[in-house]
Amino acid sequence: MERRPKIVIVGGGFGGLWAAKALANKPVDVMLIDRKNHHVFQPLLYQVATAVLSPGEIAQPIRRILHYAKNIEVILGEVTGFDTARNIVRLDDGSEVTFDYLIVAAGARHAYFGHDDWEVSAPGLKTLEDAVEIRRRVLLAFELAERDAYMKGTHDPLNFVVVGGGPTGVELAGAIADIARQALAKDYKMIDTRKARVILFEGSDRVLGTFASDLSDSAKKQLEDLGVEVRLNSFVTDIAPGKVKVGEEWIACDVVVWATGVAASPIGKMLGVENDKAGRVHVEPDLSIPNKKNIFVIGDMATIKQENGEPVPGVSPAAMQMGTATAKNILAEIKGGERKNFRYVDKGTMATIGRSKAIAHLAGLKFKGLIAWLMWLGLHVFFLIGFRNRFAVIFSWFWAYLTRERSARLITGDADDLRDAVMFLKGKEAEPVLDRLVAKKELVPKGDDYR
Amino acid sequence: MERRPKIVIVGGGFGGLWAAKALANKPVDVMLIDRKNHHVFQPLLYQVATAVLSPGEIAQPIRRILHYAKNIEVILGEVTGFDTARNIVRLDDGSEVTFDYLIVAAGARHAYFGHDDWEVSAPGLKTLEDAVEIRRRVLLAFELAERDAYMKGTHDPLNFVVVGGGPTGVELAGAIADIARQALAKDYKMIDTRKARVILFEGSDRVLGTFASDLSDSAKKQLEDLGVEVRLNSFVTDIAPGKVKVGEEWIACDVVVWATGVAASPIGKMLGVENDKAGRVHVEPDLSIPNKKNIFVIGDMATIKQENGEPVPGVSPAAMQMGTATAKNILAEIKGGERKNFRYVDKGTMATIGRSKAIAHLAGLKFKGLIAWLMWLGLHVFFLIGFRNRFAVIFSWFWAYLTRERSARLITGDADDLRDAVMFLKGKEAEPVLDRLVAKKELVPKGDDYR
Repeated sequence: MERRPKIVIVGGGFGGLWAAKALANKPVDVMLIDRKNHHVFQPLLYQVATAVLSPGEIAQPIRRILHYAKNIEVILGEVTGFDTARNIVRLDDGSEVTFDYLIVAAGARHAYFGHDDWEVSAPGLKTLEDAVEIRRRVLLAFELAERDAYMKGTHDPLNFVVVGGGPTGVELAGAIADIARQALAKDYKMIDTRKARVILFEGSDRVLGTFASDLSDSAKKQLEDLGVEVRLNSFVTDIAPGKVKVGEEWIACDVVVWATGVAASPIGKMLGVENDKAGRVHVEPDLSIPNKKNIFVIGDMATIKQENGEPVPGVSPAAMQMGTATAKNILAEIKGGERKNFRYVDKGTMATIGRSKAIAHLAGLKFKGLIAWLMWLGLHVFFLIGFRNRFAVIFSWFWAYLTRERSARLITGDADDLRDAVMFLKGKEAEPVLDRLVAKKELVPKGDDYR
Repeated sequence: MERRPKIVIVGGGFGGLWAAKALANKPVDVMLIDRKNHHVFQPLLYQVATAVLSPGEIAQPIRRILHYAKNIEVILGEVTGFDTARNIVRLDDGSEVTFDYLIVAAGARHAYFGHDDWEVSAPGLKTLEDAVEIRRRVLLAFELAERDAYMKGTHDPLNFVVVGGGPTGVELAGAIADIARQALAKDYKMIDTRKARVILFEGSDRVLGTFASDLSDSAKKQLEDLGVEVRLNSFVTDIAPGKVKVGEEWIACDVVVWATGVAASPIGKMLGVENDKAGRVHVEPDLSIPNKKNIFVIGDMATIKQENGEPVPGVSPAAMQMGTATAKNILAEIKGGERKNFRYVDKGTMATIGRSKAIAHLAGLKFKGLIAWLMWLGLHVFFLIGFRNRFAVIFSWFWAYLTRERSARLITGDADDLRDAVMFLKGKEAEPVLDRLVAKKELVPKGDDYR
């Protein structure tokens, strides 16, 4: 039997998964490696962080999604390095995997601009674990205020801070304002949850800066209608447990969420090619890396310009398109055909802000408010992975819309997790926690090369 | 305004919650304290551990359940002690709460019979965190076997061990066999998940020992039909990561779940009254503690005999009945009436084993198999807390039944959690993990007094 070309895909996010789908049941052998057993529908992570959806509703096991593909093997593992000269991927258990083609799609996290120590005080939102941690802190803040109000007759003001006015920051700020004003209001007897402040800090002069400026203005207005304080041209200059510094002013706050900056997966540094400041790999027009035609880097790990000179944006449709295009190029080459250069097709952009609030820019037309929100809703349900998840999410949304309830309001975690969360909320005794997290390698000072 | 009697309830499980419901909107002030913000529907925890349901589907915020009760304040907190002479409860933040009546309902965990160090290797199933930890280990065992089979051409046998043949053990063993034989079988390409062994060890001569012996025999047969190996008269004498010792024989295994023994909450020791070996409080016929008529202990923390001389069983209907009875006694006394002694009403018992498999004993009649399972199903849906949860669970069950899918197959947790789980599965390098868990106080050697 003839040996079939072997393709290794690193990462089961949108890029890697779409590459795998395009290679399913084709005359190649595929191995997909991911550190997690599940694909996460990242655009809805903020709804897990704000107790609308459960983690299981936006995630599916990768091997379940690909179980119909007889030529794809899914492996749980972590990549620790490459030997690009010998076409080898190294895994955390010391094993080596050879490939004919390699597709690297390990995504990105948020960047803390040289202050990685801020991460414990101000987590980002990229994984289910991040979402559950943010949910824990947000819900715990209300519980502690209620307890203080009952036991001591007074409580600290409830302040929630979101850093970064991109899509994630806007969605989170809107959703936190919504939960405080609607879902929680009738359940707390001592505190008025509607008085919680939600402050969104954005360094530039508008939110959702990739949109047309009138849509940005509308988004800011819609956020303010929800009760979010939007502070533009505001740079966060320091963060400590229980407070953030904006310019020269320290602001006390319960929960800080970090939603700005891009730091590509550190495995991009291991390929031995040029990276940009965010750690992204400069790829060739066909998404391969310089001087290695059989190695591709796609999704948030890659940086490449469109024909108009603008960079391809770091959004999920771009990652999906890159995955599909790379798979097609490999299949074409195997059959003796030619590769095509990658061309990003912008099918329009939209961002949601809250219940009945959104903006969209599709086919040259601009939409605001309810109509944009309904478009957002339909599109996200359509793209959600898996039939059962789609049903469950529709049901959860329908329920949340009707009753203004939040059904996933669980503060979970062991005693240690809760103790940490309380310390970060209250800003007390944080040093030992930091030391312990460093010792546990949960917070690894990353050094200059990963910024 | 006249001061109303203040009732403090410790614990939001079935006992505490049913007491609170009976006191809702009555002329008393109630404070319910729990370490968690949510009530867990414990009878369905095994379905979270086996990826059928998501944590959010079997849990509801306690303050949400009781939000209609204007006289009940729910507080997140941990009880650290009592001053029974001064009618005071002490909390973890150093504050003191006074009461006129106190209802202690903090439940129980499994007992390791003097070997509390076994807990990390063989977790019990009492909280959502336990369920997610067991789910992580079960799913991870299959992932590691698949990876070994692909990378090394061979894998260790997949063995799952459940210790204890009571309802929890039987349900878990059946559900693990079910997931291995149905839901996972078509998703793994290298391993045959149907060859996984599930072994249930029970120390006595039959499973579900509280049922009539012919029902026990039927349960054993139904378990064996699912592929579970039932080993009776088998005592586990030692446990280490990756293996259990039964009698003199060490058996290699991936996951061990502990489902036997009762260890009442340690706060039962803080009341200064007599406890039994399991740490339960010997209560008076009205469920109050000796010499303190205004302090009640209910649910799994209490031990009391029925009229027939048998102890009241540690099941959720008993806890609910105790909660309601105590609330009624307090309300009667406030109005100048008399207390009634507690009388447990056995409304029948049932245990589920797997899809279409169960036993039930109701109104003197015995049921087995499908009919018993349908009764179990109806009853559990009916009793599930909260309308939305009930809908969501019915949908998840309907989906799981139709497709034989498991929708909550997520391996979650940070890198540390996963590393620990792998070590316990593989039995390697477990010592540093144990040390670290002890340092983190996740595993606190509990000493002789908590057995």
